This record gives sequence, structure tokens and C-alpha cells, in this order.
Amino acid sequence: MTWTQLVPDLLGVFFFAVSGSLLAVRRQFDIIGSLLLGTCVGLGGGILRDVILDVGVPRAFDSPVYLAPPVLAAVIVYFFAHVVQRFHDVLLTFDAGGMALFSVTGTLVALDAGMNHTAASILGVVTAVGGGVIRDVVANDVPQIFRARGLYAIPALLGAGLTALTSWLGWFGLPTAWAIAAVVFSLRMVSLRHRWQAPPSSR
Amino acid sequence: MTWTQLVPDLLGVFFFAVSGSLLAVRRQFDIIGSLLLGTCVGLGGGILRDVILDVGVPRAFDSPVYLAPPVLAAVIVYFFAHVVQRFHDVLLTFDAGGMALFSVTGTLVALDAGMNHTAASILGVVTAVGGGVIRDVVANDVPQIFRARGLYAIPALLGAGLTALTSWLGWFGLPTAWAIAAVVFSLRMVSLRHRWQAPPSSR
Amino acid sequence: MTWTQLVPDLLGVFFFAVSGSLLAVRRQFDIIGSLLLGTCVGLGGGILRDVILDVGVPRAFDSPVYLAPPVLAAVIVYFFAHVVQRFHDVLLTFDAGGMALFSVTGTLVALDAGMNHTAASILGVVTAVGGGVIRDVVANDVPQIFRARGLYAIPALLGAGLTALTSWLGWFGLPTAWAIAAVVFSLRMVSLRHRWQAPPSSR
Repeated sequence: MTWTQLVPDLLGVFFFAVSGSLLAVRRQFDIIGSLLLGTCVGLGGGILRDVILDVGVPRAFDSPVYLAPPVLAAVIVYFFAHVVQRFHDVLLTFDAGGMALFSVTGTLVALDAGMNHTAASILGVVTAVGGGVIRDVVANDVPQIFRARGLYAIPALLGAGLTALTSWLGWFGLPTAWAIAAVVFSLRMVSLRHRWQAPPSSR
Repeated sequence: MTWTQLVPDLLGVFFFAVSGSLLAVRRQFDIIGSLLLGTCVGLGGGILRDVILDVGVPRAFDSPVYLAPPVLAAVIVYFFAHVVQRFHDVLLTFDAGGMALFSVTGTLVALDAGMNHTAASILGVVTAVGGGVIRDVVANDVPQIFRARGLYAIPALLGAGLTALTSWLGWFGLPTAWAIAAVVFSLRMVSLRHRWQAPPSSR
Repeated sequence: MTWTQLVPDLLGVFFFAVSGSLLAVRRQFDIIGSLLLGTCVGLGGGILRDVILDVGVPRAFDSPVYLAPPVLAAVIVYFFAHVVQRFHDVLLTFDAGGMALFSVTGTLVALDAGMNHTAASILGVVTAVGGGVIRDVVANDVPQIFRARGLYAIPALLGAGLTALTSWLGWFGLPTAWAIAAVVFSLRMVSLRHRWQAPPSSR
């Protein structure tokens, strides 16, 4: 993984870890619980992806640098949770940031491992939503992705699909990566604000 | 995997996916949630099996054809959920169909990967019940397998055990496969109707 | 894995399996549910570890001997649950025993597989707490590790860290293994009795 991929990936880990640590505060877990839940959420999607790709030990275990964002997140949340929680939907905002970045980096990692473009998009979605599903299942909630206000899976699918498409067309590069992540994040946040909903599951 | 194995496997994916999409309707998830939950349930058991077998990328990611049954299931449930839900236990019936087929195909895949007959039976059970456990855990329920009316794990064990046994004896073939699945399905449904229960867990 | 590693590992499986079967009794699952939940708890942490290590089929599937402790646990719980449940915190005591042993054996297995000492400690913690998290998630509870009375993750981290450290120093051996497990178990139990708590997750 090059530096240009590592930076958004670590940033995604950090955003998800903050969402996990904020949920830990809300549930009154202790500081260790905050660190552990943040770590699960931040690293869970990528570990799931790497286990499915079957390419050796997941990079989160191979590269100690992946442990830094969850520690940082737990420390920041420890000191500033009472401040940030005054803002509306702060947990969902960090979650959206992690999801946006992972929909891009998850798809890239799968493409690098030699997956075809369809399978890589799907693994990108798994990476993007996996950590959040783990967070909510472990905290004994129905996952965001099923009960979200606003759109959740659609932005993730869009991010993974655009990443696979631009790669296939040979247009993918660092600016494209950030642009796709920005679009995904914006779509998630706008849909959250305006409470857009996908159609119901039965007529 | 030969055609004769692929057909029951895809049918199992479809049955489980219908059970997932029906649960999504009951929980008022949206259409995307229905598709995602159906996909998790339909493909989850097989992905778990392939990850444990450590034989490369799970076939659900390798073969795009595995994505067709969950899409079909979500579409059918979208149009007909209000019809089928009038029937008693329709979700449990589809779940039983998936479980019956996967107890056979899961064991076969494990045998093909070189597992011994005991381990292959156990992996067959993991495949047969894994998707349903994922469905119920994600939807924040205690899994069927623990709170089922009627027998659940026993039919799955029977199906996996008979598949391993007939393979070992050299009697396994397409008719055997369908016969075992039919027995497993019938045992599950009859035990459900008559509320048979295994003995309690303590004296 | 040598005999000296196999014995504590199987004992850890047994302790966790008892905790799973006891929970099954409390939840009024049937005898098969008790066996299955005990098996999930006893073998789950190690399977998770081996899947992450990506070293072939998890040893629980390779070595049929790993199936003996869960069967034994379900049988013992069947006959003696009404006796042992009179004692306070009996489920938590068995859970602590499994966690203490797995924090040592999980780290050792990861070191044997060639992981560096940091990553091996983390995988040791995953092994030590994974089975219990699976137990509580499947039984639809918030995992022990987040809501425990007393310290839970800290003893697990200590056990894994000491195992990695003594290995690195070349001091590790059978007496060290049992001593570390005893310290971890004692710390967990003493902290449970005196309701020690880690600091809260926010200031």
C-alpha cells in the first residue's frame, strides 16, 4: 500500500474509531471499553476484507501503525466527548467519514489483490459498512445500515462502484479518490439532514 | 463445483435470502436493507465455511452468479410479501429449505477441500446454520437455532452426517443429495408443526 | 503444538464451554443449544485467531480432540447445573479461567506462527476475549468485556503482554505459563469481588 493509500485508510480508521469511542461513552463503558470498541470499529471492516481476500495476516495486525488511530480516538473522546456531544449527530458524522473513505480504500485493496471489478466493489462495501455493523452488533443495537435515518448503503455502493469504474477506465488517482470520498460523505450527510429514505422493502 | 452441486447451492442461497428479506419486511427495513440482509443470510454461511477452509477467496465473491439469488429474493419479496406473509411460518419454511440444502452442499464443499469426514460434517452444520445465525444476530434477535420451536440443529446435524456417511460409503450421488435434503427439510417442518423439543439443558 | 501447550489450551476450551453451557441453562435453551453455545464459546476465540493468522484450517477443525471439552462441558452442566448455580458468579469464574489460559496459549500460537511480539499480544487478547464476545453477542447481551463488574480486558492484556515479554526475554516455559495464567485469573477474580473499575471513557 502506497502512502497515498495509507493516509486515507488511517484517516478512515480514525473516524470509525471515534464513532466507536463515542458510542462507548454513551453506553457508559469504561476507558478500556472505549479503546476496544473504537479499535473493533476502526479495524473491523478492514480485517473482514483481508480475511475474505485470504492474503495472509490482515494489515491491521501486520502494521503497528494501524493501532495509533484508535488510541488517539479514545484519548480525544476522553477529553472532548462532553464538548462534541453537544453537536447534533456527531457520532453519525464520524461514521459517515469512515464509511466514505473505506468505500474507496477497501475497493482499492481488493483490486490490488487481483479481484475483478464487481467483486472488488462488493468487498469495498463490506469494508465500508463492516466496522459499523460490528460496532452496533457488539453494542446490541440493530446496525445503522438497516435502521439509518437517511441513505447509508447507497452512498457506500456509489463510492465503491465509482472507485472500481474509474480504476477500470484508468482515471483513478489521488484527486479522484478524495473527490469520490467527498461525494459519498456529502450524500450521506445531506440524506441524513433531509431524511431521505430508500423505498420500503415491500409494496 | 459441478452443475449438480451448483444448483442446490444456489437454491439454498435463494431460500435463505428470502428468509432474510422477509425478516427485513417485518422489521420495516427499506428495500436496500432487504437486499443486504438477504445477501448476508444467503451468502453468510458459505463465506464462513470458505474462510474456515482457507481455500482462497470465498466462492460467493469469485462467482458473480451467487449475487443473483439475493437480488431475485428481494424483488419477489418486494412484490409478494403481503401475499406470502398470510401463510403461517413462511419465513421459517424458507429458512428450513436453505438449511436442508446447505447441510448437504456445505459438507460436500468441505470434503472436496480435503477435510476428514468428521470435520466436514461439522463445517456442513456451520454452513447450514451460519447464515441464519448471522441474520438473527444482525437483526438483534436470539438465533433460531437456540430458541426454535421444533428441532433445528438436529436436522442440520443429520443432513451433514448423512452426506459425510454416504460419501464415505461411496453411495453419494445426485439422488442421494436431494433425498437427504428432503429428509432434513421434512424433519424440521414436522418437528415445527408438532413442537417437538430436544431435552432441556439441565436435569 | 506440544503437549505442554495442548493441555492448557484444552482446559481453556473446557472452561469457556462450561460458561457457554451455563448461560444456555440460564436462558432455557435445550441440550443441543447448550452443546452448541458451549462449542462456540470454547472454540470461537481460537478459530478467530487461526482465521486471522491465515495458517490453514483452524486447529479446532483439524484436531477432533478439540470437540471433547465442549461435549464434556454440556454433559457436566446437564447433571450439575442446579448444584453449581447456587454458588455466586460460577459462570464468571469459568469464563475467567478460560480467559486466563487463552491469553497465554493464544499469544503462544501467534508467536509460533511468526507474528511479531506486539501483534502476537493483540491476537492473544483476541483469543482470550473472542469466545466470550461471541457467547454474549449470540445470546443477545452486551459482551462481558464492555459491561463487566471488575476488570476484564486489563487482565487479558496483562496475560498476553507477559507471555510475549517472557518469550522475548527467553524466560518462557511451562511454569511461567501457569504462573501467568494464575496471575490473570486472580486479578480478574479479585477485581470482580472488589468491583474495581477502570476509569470512565470520558472526563
